[in-house]
Amino acid sequence: MSASTHHLVIVGGGFAGLWAARALDNAPVRITLIDRHNHHLFQPLLYQVATAGLSAPDIAAPLRHILSAQRNIEVQLGEVTHVVPEARTVELSDGTVIGYDTLILATGAGHAYFGNDQWAEHAPGLKTLDDALRLRREMLVAFERAEAETDPVKRAAWLHFAIVGGGPTGVELAGTLAEIARHTLKDEFRHIDPRDARVRLIEAGPRVLPSFPEDLTDKAHAQLEKLGVDVCTGTPVTHIDEHGYKLGETFFAARTVVWAAGVAASPLARCLGVPLDRAGRVLVQPDLSVPGYPDIFVGGDLAAIQQANGKPVPGVAPAAKQMGKHIAKTLRQRLAGKPATPFKYSDFGNLATIGRMAAIVHLGRFKLSGPLAWWFWLAAHVYFLIGFRNRFVVLVNWAMAYISYQRAARIIFGSAPKEKVPDDHGAQDPVAEQRRAAG
Amino acid sequence: MSASTHHLVIVGGGFAGLWAARALDNAPVRITLIDRHNHHLFQPLLYQVATAGLSAPDIAAPLRHILSAQRNIEVQLGEVTHVVPEARTVELSDGTVIGYDTLILATGAGHAYFGNDQWAEHAPGLKTLDDALRLRREMLVAFERAEAETDPVKRAAWLHFAIVGGGPTGVELAGTLAEIARHTLKDEFRHIDPRDARVRLIEAGPRVLPSFPEDLTDKAHAQLEKLGVDVCTGTPVTHIDEHGYKLGETFFAARTVVWAAGVAASPLARCLGVPLDRAGRVLVQPDLSVPGYPDIFVGGDLAAIQQANGKPVPGVAPAAKQMGKHIAKTLRQRLAGKPATPFKYSDFGNLATIGRMAAIVHLGRFKLSGPLAWWFWLAAHVYFLIGFRNRFVVLVNWAMAYISYQRAARIIFGSAPKEKVPDDHGAQDPVAEQRRAAG
Repeated sequence: MSASTHHLVIVGGGFAGLWAARALDNAPVRITLIDRHNHHLFQPLLYQVATAGLSAPDIAAPLRHILSAQRNIEVQLGEVTHVVPEARTVELSDGTVIGYDTLILATGAGHAYFGNDQWAEHAPGLKTLDDALRLRREMLVAFERAEAETDPVKRAAWLHFAIVGGGPTGVELAGTLAEIARHTLKDEFRHIDPRDARVRLIEAGPRVLPSFPEDLTDKAHAQLEKLGVDVCTGTPVTHIDEHGYKLGETFFAARTVVWAAGVAASPLARCLGVPLDRAGRVLVQPDLSVPGYPDIFVGGDLAAIQQANGKPVPGVAPAAKQMGKHIAKTLRQRLAGKPATPFKYSDFGNLATIGRMAAIVHLGRFKLSGPLAWWFWLAAHVYFLIGFRNRFVVLVNWAMAYISYQRAARIIFGSAPKEKVPDDHGAQDPVAEQRRAAG
Repeated sequence: MSASTHHLVIVGGGFAGLWAARALDNAPVRITLIDRHNHHLFQPLLYQVATAGLSAPDIAAPLRHILSAQRNIEVQLGEVTHVVPEARTVELSDGTVIGYDTLILATGAGHAYFGNDQWAEHAPGLKTLDDALRLRREMLVAFERAEAETDPVKRAAWLHFAIVGGGPTGVELAGTLAEIARHTLKDEFRHIDPRDARVRLIEAGPRVLPSFPEDLTDKAHAQLEKLGVDVCTGTPVTHIDEHGYKLGETFFAARTVVWAAGVAASPLARCLGVPLDRAGRVLVQPDLSVPGYPDIFVGGDLAAIQQANGKPVPGVAPAAKQMGKHIAKTLRQRLAGKPATPFKYSDFGNLATIGRMAAIVHLGRFKLSGPLAWWFWLAAHVYFLIGFRNRFVVLVNWAMAYISYQRAARIIFGSAPKEKVPDDHGAQDPVAEQRRAAG
């Protein structure tokens, strides 16, 4: 491929970026795909890594490997920090400058704390594998700390898990945490009963999973409570610190608070100097290009665009894939001198899992909840995981977990032991020391 | 179980500690098992995690889970920093003091740099899951850096992997790294050919795998070279820094140096104030107790003891398991007022794997090398992995890896992107910038 070939730079190897790249196999373009991570992540199952059901590599595949056979693509590990539309260049954190003829920005979204960025430290979110491994570690350590704690008030704080945000991620985390406390950890501790753990799902709006019809939401609410989750709707969190959180004026002591409430588009969008929506997403043209910059496209969670019915295209994997493919088609049409068509989102339905044998499914007029919905969800997600190996191992893990209630990845690693067990260890209490030393 | 029951404290949940604990099921003792990690690690397969063939949870199982049904055991997460034999107490890093009637020390071994501790930073070893994940990250990043590097000299340094130490760990790492460079990464890069990577195994002694008979060692040497490993025997490393290493007076530029040369027993042994061997191991009595402290036993890699033939008991998993079981038996005998018997090591043979279809096996007069030895090694290791789930998933992973040459866990995580791609990134070179920016 000669150096004069049209050079497409794709920033982000998520669903939008990767699907665009794959749709340009054999196209007359030279592609550079840049990502901060060496892997594509199957984000819909990230909560399973956080809750120790799957290993990190089960839901991730190296971008180089996925794209190795596509000879017009070069994968580059790096973090894009600036886009200079006038110069048609992007700049990496290490100073590298890369020129483009066409640019696709697909860097997705991070967490939004609605003006309370100081909460981020105490209530981490769940977007990357590192987030998931951190959350896994904190959850497992919380049970360890509770076991070592003799003060019942402090112990209760270690066993209080609060999940802020009643969307799909919050619901998945709450349902799975309740299952872990009630089943997985049963019999493993000597001083605590993990079933005493309180798993609370907090939603500021009137109901969980608001993107579903109200009757399905009610079923999801009931399924969550059946799994042991304490569901609080209509109650915004007003404060979070290292000791706990406040609902209205009431303080609750909790050592593990997880943020699943808000998303904010990647800050890269701001470089473009074009209008963004409230979440920082680029208000794209009907063909997903950026107003004023026809050679820049935006896809996935970074793009704000409406469906024909006036509703926004949701920030879900199928939408991102469709956008990626549409951008690829548009680029092919342009290079062939043909007119482009506007993006049209095909809504194949909406699934949400809640926990063991609990899910809701909404496909047009078709609604489902309970075990059948869960099997449907499982089949869909395993099917869409990239690569045969991942699919098969994930199935094996889930089958084993289902039979045994066990979770294969309950391994704490990634920080020094001292960080794992901080200073205010309960056993420093002289009573605890005596209890132990007494023998 | 009343508080007056004999209290056994076991420090370390490796093979010796865990096997001692399990052998005391239903014994009239109350057991506290303390470990820095929440998991038992199947160390013989750690190199597979380091080389991205297996996930961390594939070779680790939570200690609490393994021991959940044994009601006389309490598992505690913590790091023992002191033993006070006179007071019969151990002290944790958080200040907790725990009294014991009998103590088993089984904290294993770390790395020894033979007086060159400054090498540790540049040539990490392989003992824990965190070590393995660090090594995996560094290896994968090295190929990424080589791909981004335009200076051929710097590029060669990124593609030079030196493994210091020709024992089993060094041989496994070298053979597997060569396989990754030659097969796994083939076709995935655009600017480098991973097959240009140099994987060098450096052994100061006259031959690799010196615990095997010479004819088997020669076969291992030949198998390593066939896999593409550059084997240097009789050549001690004299210097290591961030740029590379020296053999004698000759400097070699290498960005990845791995230490597999020396082990040093855990420093906890020094608290006892009893004679240690050169590697810091406790010179134990024939019943594995500590001279002068009959209520303290030492097992696994922390214990130095001879076989009947005068050779030392090797630091391998079967020996550690046997020691753990023997200590448990001795304790039962003591509590029943019966005389104890000396420890006798049963040597069931010696296996070492080299790489794909390459291994050597030595069982008494029975010697084997090549593919048959590899299948033997594989069967033995899968069999000994704890827990059905681990065995099965490991088998699936290996079967898939064998068919496809792929390695499922090639995922970089665990450090910030900037740490992954340090400052002296080749593309800061103006030539590289131009090459890229030119489009």
